[in-house]
Amino acid sequence: MTKDERLDRQLAFVLEIDRLKQVRRQTLLTDRSRQENATEHSWHMAVMAILLAENARQEDLDLLRVLQMLVIHDIVEIDAGDTFCYDDEGRRDQRQREEAAADRIFGLLPEDQGAHIRALWEEFEARETPEARFAAALDRLQPLLHNFTTAGLQWRIHGVTREKVIERNGVMKDGAPDLWRRARALIDEAVEKKHLSR
Amino acid sequence: MTKDERLDRQLAFVLEIDRLKQVRRQTLLTDRSRQENATEHSWHMAVMAILLAENARQEDLDLLRVLQMLVIHDIVEIDAGDTFCYDDEGRRDQRQREEAAADRIFGLLPEDQGAHIRALWEEFEARETPEARFAAALDRLQPLLHNFTTAGLQWRIHGVTREKVIERNGVMKDGAPDLWRRARALIDEAVEKKHLSR
Repeated sequence: MTKDERLDRQLAFVLEIDRLKQVRRQTLLTDRSRQENATEHSWHMAVMAILLAENARQEDLDLLRVLQMLVIHDIVEIDAGDTFCYDDEGRRDQRQREEAAADRIFGLLPEDQGAHIRALWEEFEARETPEARFAAALDRLQPLLHNFTTAGLQWRIHGVTREKVIERNGVMKDGAPDLWRRARALIDEAVEKKHLSR
Repeated sequence: MTKDERLDRQLAFVLEIDRLKQVRRQTLLTDRSRQENATEHSWHMAVMAILLAENARQEDLDLLRVLQMLVIHDIVEIDAGDTFCYDDEGRRDQRQREEAAADRIFGLLPEDQGAHIRALWEEFEARETPEARFAAALDRLQPLLHNFTTAGLQWRIHGVTREKVIERNGVMKDGAPDLWRRARALIDEAVEKKHLSR
């Protein structure tokens, strides 16, 4: 492959992922004006990672790998769509839909780079490394902050209970126990304010 | 400051920057459905940086610093708004508006982190380091790709000429000469297709 052909493939991928800006998530913006999309969510978490890395369970986290995982982790949703974390039905075939998406979309890239992005995505999904666990903690904390700030509007619409929120977000403690402690306090406060049902 | 107070300030900043999702840029999504916002643009460039770093003028770029700069570089626009790169009027007091925004917004953070983010922003703005020059090249390439892909719609609406596009985007060659070469080819092709006036 010539250098120009390599750049062709990279730019084709760059244009393809523009579609992720259209993939809507359940999370509302903090001013409740609309739902956010997957790229806004990814960007938000990248900034959070820079600021909150000191709260990761493991010191000396590889922040570069965290940032790379965060900005690419939702790209598969271009084909697979966003699966609401409280949607048990949708979660059933989520992995299969996302694998097919990864094959197609990462396959647009030069082979070495497709493999690099795929490995980052697999690492994020597997939640086995300290970096992936920290990234997963942010992936929970960001919508939780939004839900808390919008008086639990999406929790209430979808009939999500305190128990369910704790169950879905509990993985935070593997990556960032201090952030989980704060999240637990927010969950309790939301219940007290009747923004989240017991 | 206790650890809890530190986290309070970090989370206040995290919630504040949600407003950047409302700052609209002139750039259209590639499907022309709407203009993109500053966070979508920042996210897009972060993914581009991972893939295109091999095109940076300088080898062994510090990609972590590039990614950090890219995700924070537009935060000042929460207060200062987006200044269209072909808006000579708006560009006159842009620096002043953005300095005031940086004071307020980065000032929400714990002092050490406010200083860190401010330094990243200043580095991006000064375009003196290889990392900042590469980041600046991506900041030009991303809208240029969108303009090219949308048949120059925004160029035509704003009466932008080929000469102006070359003048505004020429800084790309300092950070990524190969990407500038490709950009030049796209500009010429756009002129040929009458999507950009001579």
